[in-house]
Amino acid sequence: MFEAAELERTLDKETYKTEVAKLRVELIEIQQRLLNADFPVILLISGVDGAGKGEMVNLLHEWMDPRHLETSAFDTPTDEEKERPHFWRYWRALPPKGKIGIHFSSWYSDPIADRLQDKITDNDQEAYLSRVNTLEKMLVDDGALLIKIWLHLGKKQYKERIKNLAADPKTAWRVTKKNLNNIKVYDQFRDVAEETLRQTSTGHAPWILVEGYDQRYRSLTVGRLLRDMIQKRLDVDPKTLVSPAVDWTAKKDKTTLLDFVDLNKALEKKEYKEKLADYQARLNELARKAHKNKISTVMALEGWDAAGKGGMIRRMIHALDARHYRVLPIAAPTDEEHARHYLWRFWRHLQRAGHMTIFDRTWYGRVLVERVEGYARNDEWIRAYQEINEFEEELTEHGIVLLKYWLHIDKDEQLARFKAREEISYKQHKITDEDYRNREKWDDYAQAVADMVERTSTPNAPWHIIEGNDKRYARVRALEILCERLEKAL
Amino acid sequence: MFEAAELERTLDKETYKTEVAKLRVELIEIQQRLLNADFPVILLISGVDGAGKGEMVNLLHEWMDPRHLETSAFDTPTDEEKERPHFWRYWRALPPKGKIGIHFSSWYSDPIADRLQDKITDNDQEAYLSRVNTLEKMLVDDGALLIKIWLHLGKKQYKERIKNLAADPKTAWRVTKKNLNNIKVYDQFRDVAEETLRQTSTGHAPWILVEGYDQRYRSLTVGRLLRDMIQKRLDVDPKTLVSPAVDWTAKKDKTTLLDFVDLNKALEKKEYKEKLADYQARLNELARKAHKNKISTVMALEGWDAAGKGGMIRRMIHALDARHYRVLPIAAPTDEEHARHYLWRFWRHLQRAGHMTIFDRTWYGRVLVERVEGYARNDEWIRAYQEINEFEEELTEHGIVLLKYWLHIDKDEQLARFKAREEISYKQHKITDEDYRNREKWDDYAQAVADMVERTSTPNAPWHIIEGNDKRYARVRALEILCERLEKAL
Repeated sequence: MFEAAELERTLDKETYKTEVAKLRVELIEIQQRLLNADFPVILLISGVDGAGKGEMVNLLHEWMDPRHLETSAFDTPTDEEKERPHFWRYWRALPPKGKIGIHFSSWYSDPIADRLQDKITDNDQEAYLSRVNTLEKMLVDDGALLIKIWLHLGKKQYKERIKNLAADPKTAWRVTKKNLNNIKVYDQFRDVAEETLRQTSTGHAPWILVEGYDQRYRSLTVGRLLRDMIQKRLDVDPKTLVSPAVDWTAKKDKTTLLDFVDLNKALEKKEYKEKLADYQARLNELARKAHKNKISTVMALEGWDAAGKGGMIRRMIHALDARHYRVLPIAAPTDEEHARHYLWRFWRHLQRAGHMTIFDRTWYGRVLVERVEGYARNDEWIRAYQEINEFEEELTEHGIVLLKYWLHIDKDEQLARFKAREEISYKQHKITDEDYRNREKWDDYAQAVADMVERTSTPNAPWHIIEGNDKRYARVRALEILCERLEKAL
Repeated sequence: MFEAAELERTLDKETYKTEVAKLRVELIEIQQRLLNADFPVILLISGVDGAGKGEMVNLLHEWMDPRHLETSAFDTPTDEEKERPHFWRYWRALPPKGKIGIHFSSWYSDPIADRLQDKITDNDQEAYLSRVNTLEKMLVDDGALLIKIWLHLGKKQYKERIKNLAADPKTAWRVTKKNLNNIKVYDQFRDVAEETLRQTSTGHAPWILVEGYDQRYRSLTVGRLLRDMIQKRLDVDPKTLVSPAVDWTAKKDKTTLLDFVDLNKALEKKEYKEKLADYQARLNELARKAHKNKISTVMALEGWDAAGKGGMIRRMIHALDARHYRVLPIAAPTDEEHARHYLWRFWRHLQRAGHMTIFDRTWYGRVLVERVEGYARNDEWIRAYQEINEFEEELTEHGIVLLKYWLHIDKDEQLARFKAREEISYKQHKITDEDYRNREKWDDYAQAVADMVERTSTPNAPWHIIEGNDKRYARVRALEILCERLEKAL
């Protein structure tokens, strides 16, 4: 989930200056409009230590009219607070309609810290978070615009930041024992935070990840998000608003995770042949062992048109026993499927223990093609991330090995492959006008893929982005990952 | 919560016969209309052993067109099922659009049985139920009409039923060891079931309690509910339907819990004076002890107009130290309150540890006056039960003693008191045209009170219905309950 916020995105000084000047005017205008609105804005700023939460809040106070902005920080509960129920201190800090309330740390600090220190079990945390979800649902049902921002910093970036602070005599005093300890427990923290965000990223109150690495980038991004989300909400007709899904699609940034994929990776033919044979042999052995041990595998395969999914599948099943796997191409739903929840058609195909199921296109269609083409309403695809995460959690908790591949190629490579297909008679059927139409929406799809990876990559079911411009490299890489995951599970 | 379904309601044979004949025609017609609808109906039938679940399901199959009705029973998981994730067997049994699927036992059996046998902790159960809520939300968001019926039988009635079965040689074989054991664990079962229903009675999928004592009563009630709820849903314009709140207000029955309250209870003046003084002395002592031990009390006082709330409060505070309690009359919200969630005005008034807070009218206004007068939309008051339960759970989990009184009088008594007030000059201000207008809606209010008690009476925060036709009796009874609850908590 956090991969998309560990890309070290930066912003140059000049652009920042120009853009902030504009943004400040717009934010003040929006605040003015908001004053007459029938809803409050609740902004939660959480995130990794050192990712700039405090600076961000200060900056917002500078940029906006502080008379209509109120920040509450929740540290160790006071005596007054301890004498009341847990959520009391959050309730009393709720902003009235027409105003913005910033909750610094908020109801998410305790469950993360307590779980990290093993004060509570996984199930205790899940129970607490279900209360948080109920609370947030209550506020949103009442009309509140709830914006939850997570400022993120990868381990490498966090270390770097602490090191830089320590190196400069002017800032060395800011580095505490706590910071140094945070480096040690970073990996556990990341897991707990990821689980927390996953469980509470609901259709009505999804989390929004912002990379905290660069001060200018994160400041402008958060400011713009705030502007766009309030704006969007002000423009909605209140009569049509029943428990609205929050739409964060006010684009954060044009560059996405996909722009950071190294598509130059390639394999020579000879090396390819050797490696392919090696991995196929290994896979055959692992798959037999998995079958014997009743470990099931589900593979979810997504990718651009012409990215080479078919060829990849053929290389995999070459190593498998036909009695133990099934390939399921997902096209238009059947009548029976159409008459049920969109996840039903995937649930029904789960195989018995020890089998492998390969889905050629998957349940992610909901947040890819259905989102981009408008087949699903906004509230439908926005809440689908949570529905999918729940579905996948049922699979992985049952012990199923779940692999999710995004087979990635760039736009030029796709065109070259389209052209090539048109010239080979037995491949002509694979290329239609629709493929060209989809191509025109490349940027929308790219944004949808980035959101998908950001919202559904979890520790137990991570997305693997396969560098696909070179087919040989992609096939071997996919086999390698499959073998590694199986090995780990056996 | 279950009190309302332990009233031993019955229905005579003649009425039953006539009504069922009509109902069967209507159910078949509705099934026909449903066939073309864009949603499935999922009917969960759960409840107490012996409350007639099996008979009910059989009867529905008899009454309706079985081609469009499918029942799935979930017993011990089969091998096939064990090899898949937990929810797989429920997913595969989901009915398609246009049809009715009955889930017998369903996803609620395991959490209740497991908790009862201490296989899982409270938090484990809460975590599981939060998944159930997500699953149900998913189905409802997708358009499904989800009807959850709990067939109930009180302990006394359950014992009676087992005894009757055992006494008749023709049915004695039906009484098993399991039945006899169920009698022993009935009280625990009731608590676990109540907690389960409370946590999963959401705005989009509330539980509906039906008393299972009399075969004719329960059969007709369930059949009518099914008819009315599908009918209502068929009549809704699908365009306005976004995650609909289920409206069960298709009246189950005209008699409610309130009709079973014995309003003849009274106290002679002499006895009253003695008891009043006794309880006040006892309360004084208990309240001082509570203050010392930092135990807080919250009293929620509701009741009919002119039921005598004011006089009751005066008798209570007579025994209290003014520094340690506050009386909060709840009238129209202030500007500040109006600008926030409706529960905010109650959260803010929670006192420090060791204090007593008496709310004269409460957060229940949402499901009483706001419901009846239409100040709250249907979806708003329907989901309010869950919101209120969550709120109260925060209080009781923090250790607060929460008392909820419904001060009950009958319609004649109210009129007599109105007239009396009009004749006493210093009480004239207490009676207005509005009081008479509210009186006209007596039956609607009675239904709202019955629903309120049914949906929000929980083991830790039960409703106490005070027999109020005799003021003396009511005051002493309220003091008695207060003392008992405090004693238990100290």
